[in-house]
Amino acid sequence: MTSIRSDARLQESLVETTRLLSRHRVLETLTHRQAAPNQDLLDSLQQRQNLAELQKHLRVMHAADLAYVLEALAPDDRRTVWEQLRPEHAGLVFVEVSEAVRDSLVDSSSRDDLIARLSTLDPEDLAYVSDSLPEDVLADVSRRLESSDRVAFEDSIRYEDDCVGRYMTREWVALPETHSIQQALDELRQRSTLPAQTDRIFLVDSRHVLRGTVPLQALLLEAPSSPIVAVLREDDVRFGPRDPASDAVRAFERYDLVSAPVVDARGKLVGRLTVDSVMDYVRQASSLRALKDAGLSGDEDLFAAPWTSAKNRWPWLGINLVTAFLASRVIGRFEGTIQQLAALATLMPIVASIGGNTGNQTMALVIRAIAVDRIQPGGARRLVNKELAVSLLNGSVWGVVVGLVAVMLYWNLGLGLVMSGAVVLNLVVAGLAGVAIPLVLHASGRDPAQGSSVLLTFITDATGFFLFLGLASAFLL
Amino acid sequence: MTSIRSDARLQESLVETTRLLSRHRVLETLTHRQAAPNQDLLDSLQQRQNLAELQKHLRVMHAADLAYVLEALAPDDRRTVWEQLRPEHAGLVFVEVSEAVRDSLVDSSSRDDLIARLSTLDPEDLAYVSDSLPEDVLADVSRRLESSDRVAFEDSIRYEDDCVGRYMTREWVALPETHSIQQALDELRQRSTLPAQTDRIFLVDSRHVLRGTVPLQALLLEAPSSPIVAVLREDDVRFGPRDPASDAVRAFERYDLVSAPVVDARGKLVGRLTVDSVMDYVRQASSLRALKDAGLSGDEDLFAAPWTSAKNRWPWLGINLVTAFLASRVIGRFEGTIQQLAALATLMPIVASIGGNTGNQTMALVIRAIAVDRIQPGGARRLVNKELAVSLLNGSVWGVVVGLVAVMLYWNLGLGLVMSGAVVLNLVVAGLAGVAIPLVLHASGRDPAQGSSVLLTFITDATGFFLFLGLASAFLL
Repeated sequence: MTSIRSDARLQESLVETTRLLSRHRVLETLTHRQAAPNQDLLDSLQQRQNLAELQKHLRVMHAADLAYVLEALAPDDRRTVWEQLRPEHAGLVFVEVSEAVRDSLVDSSSRDDLIARLSTLDPEDLAYVSDSLPEDVLADVSRRLESSDRVAFEDSIRYEDDCVGRYMTREWVALPETHSIQQALDELRQRSTLPAQTDRIFLVDSRHVLRGTVPLQALLLEAPSSPIVAVLREDDVRFGPRDPASDAVRAFERYDLVSAPVVDARGKLVGRLTVDSVMDYVRQASSLRALKDAGLSGDEDLFAAPWTSAKNRWPWLGINLVTAFLASRVIGRFEGTIQQLAALATLMPIVASIGGNTGNQTMALVIRAIAVDRIQPGGARRLVNKELAVSLLNGSVWGVVVGLVAVMLYWNLGLGLVMSGAVVLNLVVAGLAGVAIPLVLHASGRDPAQGSSVLLTFITDATGFFLFLGLASAFLL
Repeated sequence: MTSIRSDARLQESLVETTRLLSRHRVLETLTHRQAAPNQDLLDSLQQRQNLAELQKHLRVMHAADLAYVLEALAPDDRRTVWEQLRPEHAGLVFVEVSEAVRDSLVDSSSRDDLIARLSTLDPEDLAYVSDSLPEDVLADVSRRLESSDRVAFEDSIRYEDDCVGRYMTREWVALPETHSIQQALDELRQRSTLPAQTDRIFLVDSRHVLRGTVPLQALLLEAPSSPIVAVLREDDVRFGPRDPASDAVRAFERYDLVSAPVVDARGKLVGRLTVDSVMDYVRQASSLRALKDAGLSGDEDLFAAPWTSAKNRWPWLGINLVTAFLASRVIGRFEGTIQQLAALATLMPIVASIGGNTGNQTMALVIRAIAVDRIQPGGARRLVNKELAVSLLNGSVWGVVVGLVAVMLYWNLGLGLVMSGAVVLNLVVAGLAGVAIPLVLHASGRDPAQGSSVLLTFITDATGFFLFLGLASAFLL
């Protein structure tokens, strides 16, 4: 029996785990020191007792809670806890942990052990974690599945990562449309349990084509003698297994769904999508978004080896260095100008920075609008016009402010005017780039957020330097 | 009857709305031109017919879909659509639209009209939109509520924005713990409907203290003669109305909940939290996150007037300008050095940029770890050590690369060495700041993401400039 616990109780549970683990570490050191033979025996007895206590503590924890504990532990402790779990329990925990921690568990388990633990999973869960597993382990586990489960598993991994097919379950309740409500109730009562998140059952015809859904509520509230089709809802949302998962998310949100049927092209029932997997998808997508924005390819284990972490950050650093060097070449063209007026070197980062900032604001709004599908044909042009107006407005206001400060710092009116002009122009460039970059990325089928920030900063830096130093060369020297 | 539609059908529906609206605009222009009296009459007849068609089209749409349509329309069209909606329908749509569009609807409605439309809302929905309403409108609407609804409404707005109490509904099914299952079924059948997202009913004792929950499934599957306490689950998650909503999100995710009871300090049932409001909270929080990161106070209507939009972006621009000026003052101290070696001005943005980049990567990871509560006491120190190691590793690798490029550009070995040294040191500063900033913000009770990026960039810019120019002054001149 695993029990559910609140956040505070989960914290306590983590503290208790940590206490047992640190005792484990102490005892292990003592045993290895082997002071006297008797003392040794005593220590190892104590250690076994301690491990038994740890096992007992872990056994009653929910798999999701154990996943949380594993993620919070350093690699050594993580491995100790992982080894104490029973196979079925370990399998569920493996599904719940983050991708980075899953990778670390694969690395620290023996092949046989891993196979034994994964063979306890149902086909959907196995498909869900399949990306983290070595080919040969996956093949071995799949061979151990019963044939119907193997078919389901192989069916699951056929679908792309962001398709409904990857997230649907194959557990549902389908009844013939010819039943009366009483017959339906009797048939349900013969089962000892219904699949999780069953808020409605599916009605199918004799060829297993979905006719519609019936909420459990309706079964409870309607007179048992009525035919079940009396409470049938035909207009409910249904998905195809190849529909994008993001469409499903919007429909679940919009219509407050708990579960929905998935049908193939001929209308036959092939799966069921539930709100918990939709929520998992939302959280995963949104929490990975922030990491992707910072140029990390995916999640990173907080306690990964420094070398692994360092390499995880290289691709982005490399790209950033290239763009930074390119932008700096613009400055290189004006070294003569800077030699004559070093104040330019002091002020130029401000022009670049204010451009990057306003551009990023515009871009955040446009990316959000794209994400909720709010940009209509013809809307792009209107958006460009609006952002142009905003840029000119902001440019005039802040350009004057910046120019005044420059004049106050250097008592040089020309410098202030050049600075104002460069800020106005760079804000216009930033506004246009902020609208254009995500729209172009989106139109070419890419994620409008991925990489847009580095591109924008490159543009606003390069043009900021060019405008400011160029105007200065033309008018000040 | 409002019907649910898929994404593609929703798009069609939007196209149809736009078609009717553009005909409306054309007819309106014609009517105002008043060529001949007869023609005028004809046009106005046509216009009325067109509006009737629009009303008919809108009437069958789901409130969430209408919200989507309103968000995609420009202000004029939005107002036309808004005016065609019946009061109850309009009320629900008002709840579903984004905050920015809600503000625009408030602005474009007459006071009486707004009050009539909002009076149709239930107290929870009214509390949900209360922040967007002028004080006096809210007071008037609240006065029109029935007294029990008014109590519920006033109770709702007592809770903070991010508390469970703000998101809970007051619609639930509670039965006495003394019932048999048959009695429970009979009592349920007397209702014509159950509240949305009812996957479980609540059992209470005679003082209305929550005893536990019973899944609807159990009612269906268990023998009707059993006492209902036989299927009672006492260990289910329950929340307090003042618990942070983010705790509830984690519990709903972890345990795949559909609904959960909310109880006061004495254990009495005061509300019910459902997965749809939890999902709304998640989406709202995560989509506002990207906007907040870019320094926007909140959502912005894509078609807001330029002046409104411009002002929305000012606070952040102001802060950014101040930090940019401060960082540039560091450069100002070295103007003499730059005058002697203008190459420094060319290369210095690279040192700053690579620091900002790695710092942001570290920070994204730490913020994510804080968000999922994965940082334990003592974990901070380990994290600092790890990021220090990563910074030194990355610094050595990329410092050498950057130094080599500098040498190749300027044939100046000393310049290359200074550049390498500055990059290594700035990466160390960036790594430490990337860990420290979100941890300190979090410890002081603030959102670790809000404002962290501008602070980090300021630090990496200022120290980048200082390290590079300082080392150059010391060793090159």
